[in-house]
Amino acid sequence: MRISKYFLATLKEAPSEAVIDSHKIMIRAGMVRQLASGVYTWLPTGKRILNKVEQIVRREHAVVGSHECLATMVTPAELWIESGRYNSYGDNLLKFKDRKDADFVLGPTHEEVFTTTVKQEVFSYRQLPLNLYQIQTKFRDETRPRFGILRTREFIMADAYSFHQDWEDLKRTYADMEETYHRIFTACGLSFRAVEADNGSMGGAGSKEFQVLAEAGEDLIAYSDTSDYAANIEKAPALPSSERQAPTKEVEKVHTPGVTTIESLVEFGKGAYDASQTIKLVVVNGATEQAPLVAIALRGDHELNEVKAEHHPLIASPVTMANPGQIEEVFGAKPGSLGVINCPVPLIVDNTALTVSDFVTGANDTDYHYFGVNWDRDVTDYHSADLRNVVEGDPSPDGQGKLLLTRGCECGHVFMLGDKYSKSLNFTVTDENGQNIHPVMGCYGIGVTRVVAAAIEQNHDEWGCTLPDALVPFLVGLVPVNYNKSQAVRDFAEQFYAELPLKEEVYFDDRGERLGVALADIDLIGVPYQFIVGEKNLNNGQVEFKDRRTGEKELLTIEQAKAKAKALLENYNK
Amino acid sequence: MRISKYFLATLKEAPSEAVIDSHKIMIRAGMVRQLASGVYTWLPTGKRILNKVEQIVRREHAVVGSHECLATMVTPAELWIESGRYNSYGDNLLKFKDRKDADFVLGPTHEEVFTTTVKQEVFSYRQLPLNLYQIQTKFRDETRPRFGILRTREFIMADAYSFHQDWEDLKRTYADMEETYHRIFTACGLSFRAVEADNGSMGGAGSKEFQVLAEAGEDLIAYSDTSDYAANIEKAPALPSSERQAPTKEVEKVHTPGVTTIESLVEFGKGAYDASQTIKLVVVNGATEQAPLVAIALRGDHELNEVKAEHHPLIASPVTMANPGQIEEVFGAKPGSLGVINCPVPLIVDNTALTVSDFVTGANDTDYHYFGVNWDRDVTDYHSADLRNVVEGDPSPDGQGKLLLTRGCECGHVFMLGDKYSKSLNFTVTDENGQNIHPVMGCYGIGVTRVVAAAIEQNHDEWGCTLPDALVPFLVGLVPVNYNKSQAVRDFAEQFYAELPLKEEVYFDDRGERLGVALADIDLIGVPYQFIVGEKNLNNGQVEFKDRRTGEKELLTIEQAKAKAKALLENYNK
Repeated sequence: MRISKYFLATLKEAPSEAVIDSHKIMIRAGMVRQLASGVYTWLPTGKRILNKVEQIVRREHAVVGSHECLATMVTPAELWIESGRYNSYGDNLLKFKDRKDADFVLGPTHEEVFTTTVKQEVFSYRQLPLNLYQIQTKFRDETRPRFGILRTREFIMADAYSFHQDWEDLKRTYADMEETYHRIFTACGLSFRAVEADNGSMGGAGSKEFQVLAEAGEDLIAYSDTSDYAANIEKAPALPSSERQAPTKEVEKVHTPGVTTIESLVEFGKGAYDASQTIKLVVVNGATEQAPLVAIALRGDHELNEVKAEHHPLIASPVTMANPGQIEEVFGAKPGSLGVINCPVPLIVDNTALTVSDFVTGANDTDYHYFGVNWDRDVTDYHSADLRNVVEGDPSPDGQGKLLLTRGCECGHVFMLGDKYSKSLNFTVTDENGQNIHPVMGCYGIGVTRVVAAAIEQNHDEWGCTLPDALVPFLVGLVPVNYNKSQAVRDFAEQFYAELPLKEEVYFDDRGERLGVALADIDLIGVPYQFIVGEKNLNNGQVEFKDRRTGEKELLTIEQAKAKAKALLENYNK
Repeated sequence: MRISKYFLATLKEAPSEAVIDSHKIMIRAGMVRQLASGVYTWLPTGKRILNKVEQIVRREHAVVGSHECLATMVTPAELWIESGRYNSYGDNLLKFKDRKDADFVLGPTHEEVFTTTVKQEVFSYRQLPLNLYQIQTKFRDETRPRFGILRTREFIMADAYSFHQDWEDLKRTYADMEETYHRIFTACGLSFRAVEADNGSMGGAGSKEFQVLAEAGEDLIAYSDTSDYAANIEKAPALPSSERQAPTKEVEKVHTPGVTTIESLVEFGKGAYDASQTIKLVVVNGATEQAPLVAIALRGDHELNEVKAEHHPLIASPVTMANPGQIEEVFGAKPGSLGVINCPVPLIVDNTALTVSDFVTGANDTDYHYFGVNWDRDVTDYHSADLRNVVEGDPSPDGQGKLLLTRGCECGHVFMLGDKYSKSLNFTVTDENGQNIHPVMGCYGIGVTRVVAAAIEQNHDEWGCTLPDALVPFLVGLVPVNYNKSQAVRDFAEQFYAELPLKEEVYFDDRGERLGVALADIDLIGVPYQFIVGEKNLNNGQVEFKDRRTGEKELLTIEQAKAKAKALLENYNK
């Protein structure tokens, strides 16, 4: 590619609103431009990367026997009303009317469309299983698009849907698709983890996220230091690391003026105990009329896991905190002094909190705490559940090793949906015995645009992109120094370029820009293998080669340089 | 591809609303399904064809140096307000609000987005020319989507935009893009014509349409029987084929009771004259306050060309007929009796009508006509213009041969836009002298989804698709007879399939369906090269080969069959 005729659009500075590195780099490298909040145009350099991801996705879906379709982007509202998600999906679902006042949505996901389409064609178990996918632009009207391309409103998904006569068959395809996703992220050259995940609003029976590891990721991942176990922190079971000791102290009510936080409570103790020996109360709104408030007891140093709480039958979903006025009215004490003894609302104790003995907790009396409290002796009426986030050092749930935490960008998600959509959209087939059954479904999604951002988040340095070969915008760079001034350099570079195969992967900087600008641009967009042609080296029969990722430079003979560039291009994507 | 695991979705009957052949076939062949009026999902067989068209489009755009982008589908309304098209585009522009009440449109075309994007990056003539394109799903809220995939609301376009410092440079790229489009349609294997066309609402200085020839096409194309000349009938200049003769008759006013149409007027003459010797008046609304009505005089056997009329400064655009009450009030006569003598409103005479002498026309007196009328003697106050549709036999405008008419589907359109958008969106660059200039633009579009429908419209027979090799869903078919019953057939077919390269292009019907069903399906989707494996032939060491397009069958030896299938696959797309 002659860069003089290319739309490079690199910038010296990132716009001030760009906070994370991938966002800054993607703007500076001329990959994307924002046209409206969370709505981006992809410029040629970005689109080249996007196309490479799509190509890998297509290839691997063909291998697993998933057939490409293209569903409608503009979708009749009635399908979403039928499935029940027209309202439950919330304001992220963009609704509009056409010129004839008919209701439509811009599809953010396509369970409804694919189920409806398959339902119209498939009547017998003999037509199953089916595995269909598409690569499509989607729209989710996020209230707060952020992190550049990681969380946009308009984005590209590769979403697959599979249909099965029974769970056994679903599980087979689910496993195949999980394997397909492993192959896709591996082919992209990314460091990633498949982690257990919550099904969220999608419903169904099981799911895994494919997390591309990166500091700026929105997700926290817990993984075993010994085994393959990994889970989104939303989902990772939190196990106590020790058993409860027998009580050694009696309950004592202590005046603790001004002590309303765990921090100040520990300070008050002057080293006699730490936060792990305190129990805090989080009061949330309940799911039932009988118990409009529910108290959750956690160890002072632990955090509530809202996704786990959401699944508890007594707790309203989504989780919302009780308001302070209501708490004071019911508990007769201010929020900073709540505790587990004589709790006036249903009490759910986190499993790990249950292993603490001789602990400190609020007295449900403003400015007072109880010391030396013990479960079952002093508090008897409670439920127990796993309601906290895991922390580093917790036992791995698979019994092997301890958990560590890392951050990731969720770029893929596989779901066992079960019959949620075949039931709500009334899709049945006849089984072997002629009985009507609801097929069970899986759904699978890769955020294609997000993969590009996550890949850059994971692979960059202070100068720009260091993407793996599979995803680079160009594989080989050719930078003539003083292209416009030195006839010798120009002639040699033109000759070099003319001899190369796969020219669409060659970044040939024939712009005649200053060397500093040329080198900054090629590093910014991240061309991994750079050949720099200068007159002085040329006079010595040499060309400089630079490895973009390591920064290492070496002088090659002209023959070596040509052979190396040709070999890189000939072996690309083989 | 094993069809047992494929989503074939063929149907015996087309839905009753499908009128044209491509629509019927695309539904029956399981290529598309309608989800809402003019909104279709592409099933795997259709998507396979679509992907082939897209691949050709990508390849040829790379050759011409057009760089792929992907602009936003959801577009801020302000860009369209700035360009002036927010209102002028009409109700086909789908408008909506996001959750924050901001105004957006679903892009039906992207001049605004590309001009705005380029304007933000390009400041100097040295950064030009630029040629960018995208392949994108678009939405045009047609009031009456029809003809299946030929005129949908949601559709895929490959749209390119080029930017230039001057007209000379634009013309160069315009010519290159015209050549690119020729290569694309040729590579698709289609019979097409590039025809001169009206610029319509796009504005600008020149345009050509690429018309895929097909009976069901919405467009009428005039072309020379001798030269390369071709134009949309909207645009084709209508030249008189003879000069006006001198008058031989005097004007005579004749009572013609009940004669209100050209047909009845000719009948009234009992062979004394034909429709070509009559002059009719069409009264339309005017463009100016001074002349709210305008009369157009045409030969009785000619049709008004509304696009030509639209461009006339006295005629309102779009063309609307005057209402009969108003006509009667102004002319003092009923619409069936209007004529060119003493016409009370501005009169525009079609150039060809001006060559008639001794003609018959209405007398502007109900139930009366004038006979023996002659221009300039009897009628002096008139304008003249080309306002009619050409007819077969008219002289070709290039002076070579006569015009013939044929029908086509407009599948591509190239435009010289000029500075319409750079002016309205205030895009300037500095030229060589440091002066600000508005770059001139070209825009170029291929209806990718429409190409598939037009290709089928052009290439089908009573059994289904006969697409050219470049666009077939599968190249080679393998149909075992009694796959589920004959072990010999099954083993042989499996072996045959196993030995073939490029399996994604092989339609291997391993469903075990009845032979009639299997052969109907493979003909319907149009697999061009079919190998039918039956036990009897196999026992003779033979396989039947069928050419889908000619219907010819021949028996090949097993070795011949294998070699032929391999050769077809190995040479595909080379």
